[in-house]
Amino acid sequence: MKVYTEYLTLQTSKEKEIVNITTLVEKAIKKSGVKEGLCLVNSMHITSSVFINDEEYGLKQDFLRWLEEIAPMKPDYQHHRTGEVNADAHLKRTIMGREVVVAVTRGELDFGPWEQIFYGEFDGKRPKRVLIKILGE
Amino acid sequence: MKVYTEYLTLQTSKEKEIVNITTLVEKAIKKSGVKEGLCLVNSMHITSSVFINDEEYGLKQDFLRWLEEIAPMKPDYQHHRTGEVNADAHLKRTIMGREVVVAVTRGELDFGPWEQIFYGEFDGKRPKRVLIKILGE
Amino acid sequence: MKVYTEYLTLQTSKEKEIVNITTLVEKAIKKSGVKEGLCLVNSMHITSSVFINDEEYGLKQDFLRWLEEIAPMKPDYQHHRTGEVNADAHLKRTIMGREVVVAVTRGELDFGPWEQIFYGEFDGKRPKRVLIKILGE
Repeated sequence: MKVYTEYLTLQTSKEKEIVNITTLVEKAIKKSGVKEGLCLVNSMHITSSVFINDEEYGLKQDFLRWLEEIAPMKPDYQHHRTGEVNADAHLKRTIMGREVVVAVTRGELDFGPWEQIFYGEFDGKRPKRVLIKILGE
Repeated sequence: MKVYTEYLTLQTSKEKEIVNITTLVEKAIKKSGVKEGLCLVNSMHITSSVFINDEEYGLKQDFLRWLEEIAPMKPDYQHHRTGEVNADAHLKRTIMGREVVVAVTRGELDFGPWEQIFYGEFDGKRPKRVLIKILGE
Repeated sequence: MKVYTEYLTLQTSKEKEIVNITTLVEKAIKKSGVKEGLCLVNSMHITSSVFINDEEYGLKQDFLRWLEEIAPMKPDYQHHRTGEVNADAHLKRTIMGREVVVAVTRGELDFGPWEQIFYGEFDGKRPKRVLIKILGE
């Protein structure tokens, strides 16, 4: 059995931003030497996400606008009594998901034609970490 | 270590439809020979889902109606500037989830009494693939 | 390869409640003897969740209030024709997620500074089970 661990550090320039990290995951799979197995990719923070969708500029804008509709920034969250102002980021991350588990087949990401892995930042402009853990043979 | 990969192809008759795929996953587990391990089941498309819930006709209708409320079909998504008209399907799939990871124990799906695996199609009437990857011993 | 399985039984005192189960998962990892691997934690019921977020009292209240807004309790779900009255719990669990997959590194949960594992109950006051499956070496 092979197990491989890697940590990415990402810092977005905007507070809310969607970043394609597919090639970083592909590189980790190559480094792992795993040919057949499972690969976990997760945000290590609770105000950002890792998810799979389509690399299309308009769609990324649609995601951010939609998240603002169903999990809006507003002052009256109870979490804000702690001095934090980012409760909406916790909710947005919940919608988009913390992690993905993807298959590794013949040493590659086993993906459909449009699948791409994204980091979704909802409380950014500071360094945050993503964990990649690959298990297989 | 045993690793097993299988691809299902599904084509729904409706544009939006929920299909129970539990027995197809059970068959894959039998074929894999894995007695103890983890099983990933994911949609390979970004407008459909794999999720776990209850096999009950009314509930499936409730899911589809609710998704239409919180992630509605409408013309003014930016994704539609590409000529696509399915931005709502990307959002609906995000709510329902891309994948499930399930435990295999003593050669069977290790499920609670009501757990069933579903394929959720939000842009259907054409062949789409689901990946099953099983890792264990 | 080591594979370890454990079942937790939880019974909340409220119908809707969020319970921190991080130390229970940590204990299972110790018992498993796995130093490097993956750990699946999932609700075995379809009206409750396992998810990762922040241990902060106000935020937990925000989650419950927000879920009531986007997946409200109301009488007119089709699922209720079966005699059930908990369709909202199925929807709330869908938002919060069924499962988490977490990395085990050097025998510990490989977590960011604020990550904690929660059981989210949306139809409680009765015993329900959570499965922990750990695979690695």
